[in-house]
Amino acid sequence: MSAQVNVVLLGLGVVGGGVAGALNERAETYSSRVGATLNLCRVLVRDAEKERSVKIGPGLLTVRPEDALSGDVDIVVELMGGEHPAYELIKDSLSRGRYVVTANKEVMAKHGPELLALAAEKGVDILYEASVGGGIPIISPLKRDLSANEISSVRAIINGTTNYILTRMSRDGLDFATALAQAQELGYAEADPTNDIDGHDAAYKLAILASLAFHTRVGPDDVYREGIGGLAPRDFLYARELGYAIKLLAVARREDSTVQARVHPTLLPEDELLAKVDGALNAVQIEGDLTGRILLQGAGAGSLPTTSAVMADVLDAARAVVQDGRPFPWRHTAELSIRPLAELVTRYYIRLGVADRPGVLAGIARAFGDHGVSIASVIQKETDEAAQTAELVIMTHPAREDAVQATLLELRDLPEVVSVGNLLRVDG
Amino acid sequence: MSAQVNVVLLGLGVVGGGVAGALNERAETYSSRVGATLNLCRVLVRDAEKERSVKIGPGLLTVRPEDALSGDVDIVVELMGGEHPAYELIKDSLSRGRYVVTANKEVMAKHGPELLALAAEKGVDILYEASVGGGIPIISPLKRDLSANEISSVRAIINGTTNYILTRMSRDGLDFATALAQAQELGYAEADPTNDIDGHDAAYKLAILASLAFHTRVGPDDVYREGIGGLAPRDFLYARELGYAIKLLAVARREDSTVQARVHPTLLPEDELLAKVDGALNAVQIEGDLTGRILLQGAGAGSLPTTSAVMADVLDAARAVVQDGRPFPWRHTAELSIRPLAELVTRYYIRLGVADRPGVLAGIARAFGDHGVSIASVIQKETDEAAQTAELVIMTHPAREDAVQATLLELRDLPEVVSVGNLLRVDG
Repeated sequence: MSAQVNVVLLGLGVVGGGVAGALNERAETYSSRVGATLNLCRVLVRDAEKERSVKIGPGLLTVRPEDALSGDVDIVVELMGGEHPAYELIKDSLSRGRYVVTANKEVMAKHGPELLALAAEKGVDILYEASVGGGIPIISPLKRDLSANEISSVRAIINGTTNYILTRMSRDGLDFATALAQAQELGYAEADPTNDIDGHDAAYKLAILASLAFHTRVGPDDVYREGIGGLAPRDFLYARELGYAIKLLAVARREDSTVQARVHPTLLPEDELLAKVDGALNAVQIEGDLTGRILLQGAGAGSLPTTSAVMADVLDAARAVVQDGRPFPWRHTAELSIRPLAELVTRYYIRLGVADRPGVLAGIARAFGDHGVSIASVIQKETDEAAQTAELVIMTHPAREDAVQATLLELRDLPEVVSVGNLLRVDG
Repeated sequence: MSAQVNVVLLGLGVVGGGVAGALNERAETYSSRVGATLNLCRVLVRDAEKERSVKIGPGLLTVRPEDALSGDVDIVVELMGGEHPAYELIKDSLSRGRYVVTANKEVMAKHGPELLALAAEKGVDILYEASVGGGIPIISPLKRDLSANEISSVRAIINGTTNYILTRMSRDGLDFATALAQAQELGYAEADPTNDIDGHDAAYKLAILASLAFHTRVGPDDVYREGIGGLAPRDFLYARELGYAIKLLAVARREDSTVQARVHPTLLPEDELLAKVDGALNAVQIEGDLTGRILLQGAGAGSLPTTSAVMADVLDAARAVVQDGRPFPWRHTAELSIRPLAELVTRYYIRLGVADRPGVLAGIARAFGDHGVSIASVIQKETDEAAQTAELVIMTHPAREDAVQATLLELRDLPEVVSVGNLLRVDG
């Protein structure tokens, strides 16, 4: 029990503070669980003078990366976020044969395969449980517990900010701007919310999950992505009338030797478990050919849940250091191609503003028919008598994305179509 | 990639057949995922002549344990079930320095600490993901992903047979005997269903989960246990009227240096996620001080889901064999005492048959009051005019179990009380 494992922390923000706090306050417990003392030996910060709620021993703080990483270091915990310089510091740490624990979804989504290969080459590991789903075990179940399965799909609500906003829009009828402003007030959304609301964050996470689930390389650019900014409160009303919730769903599906990965607002049947995941919760549903559907749910963000995931990886790395183990390298054993969105076949919800006069529907229906898109139902909504316009909500039968997009192009040119509102895809 | 890992299978029933099938059909995939060929070298069966759906190479079957375990064996997969001779064969295998993978909840619940210690001593491991929750990752998340947390509670629906029966009773108003008979017809319940319906199976699994969650030793005898045979269809009606579902809940809670573990029919608020886990599904909710509440849900039994868990452990053990790694031993670092059921404080649902005449309630209420048990609501149900009896459903405020039991004893002696029906505890 006298072994000591030296840990360096890069970043002391919300999560970094949580990790430093856990290392301080739980030293004895953690030491009993790994058979070694975890010694926080240096912390890289931007401003060494800043007041902090977590107590860090004198002389541990540094603003110089080269100081932070010098000397006898076993585990580097990267919690800076963003691509640079995190990527370079991780690479440097692995190159020097150190274990790396990171919560950095952007770096792992963009550079995961390279960093995993480098770790394997150096006989260490890079662990990134905290990069997806906060405190929910998800990376490790995919790497280990489901490894006997061929996984056919991953469907996930993995961005708490957008799920909070969508829940408020759905429950309280708020418009997007108001829901966003309230999310910002409550700390659920950042001052610049682009990364979340445009779906970048979810796309990074989905790329990570899909790469693991399908044992292949899926990068963030392979993920089709649409944000939630275009949703109107009445989309939620109409969807509910049709029996659906609207969620920013991240979906990756394997078909033969192809993968399709996409993040966009999605209509989910109301009785599905994922449709009921509200507020800042996250949930991931995985379908394996042996295990069937499993659902993992919990807090997807926040200092403590993310600390739980980071520290699980730190303890795991510490055990490997103590045992002098050589971690088993993760293998991307498949080379699947990315199936373009154009080939997606699903049902679609389409909201149109149209002239409110006889014969309009015939022209619209003809446009759908011409492209082989079959209409399942049409509901006329919200007639504006002054403007002589009405709103139509059309649900299609399963159709190909490219056919639906071609239909929309044609609809835009029809004189009776005033506006082409939202197109939302159905899943499940 | 030329390494070979020798696997012996003990048992070729429903799960054993699934595992043998997976090893046969997925040989190439698994070999690419562990960097070695998994070689099924012997299978212990009861009857070597029996017709089987899974193809096993000639000469691999044996009915003699000593033959099955002889020679160069790396991993022993025990899928016989029952305490003996499984326990002895596992012990023998570990003693000889072999990895053991088992789905045996009874052996792990009764002998887990001893077998884990033996594995550690021999520098190998005993893996038992399949012993709880079928294909749901749960053992490994507790051992690894949540290891930075202090866990305060585990609440679980971990017996598919009883959950199927309760779901049928609740949805279709069936009585217990009919629901059980239908479960048996459909293969959800065994010919002798005692192990499931009396809660033994769930108690074994809870002992395993509690031991891991609290890093202490909780044996099956430490788990308070009640089965579902005493539930009547109208209990489900009354519960629903009060806003509850009835589930066979397995609960383990830590308080200071004590643990309370119990398996009994439980009233769960209808809006709780666990209340909605129906049919043969399983779900485990874990509350950690860092991660908050997480929920893991999926198929809790069946050949393929259990095969998924067994094979995940086999692949993990194979990686350790290939890497010549020394697994990190699991440590029971805490010595918590078992808190007796008498000290439980919760709300109670009590169904009483009483004489239908004035003044009856006063006498009953006095008995509760005498023991300091405060009544939250009383509903009078189902008056039988011929017999001049009525049924009362009483919900208490939070009260101590021993006070409630003393109340019931007194009620039994009251002339106006015809029968003391069900006592059900509320959780959540």
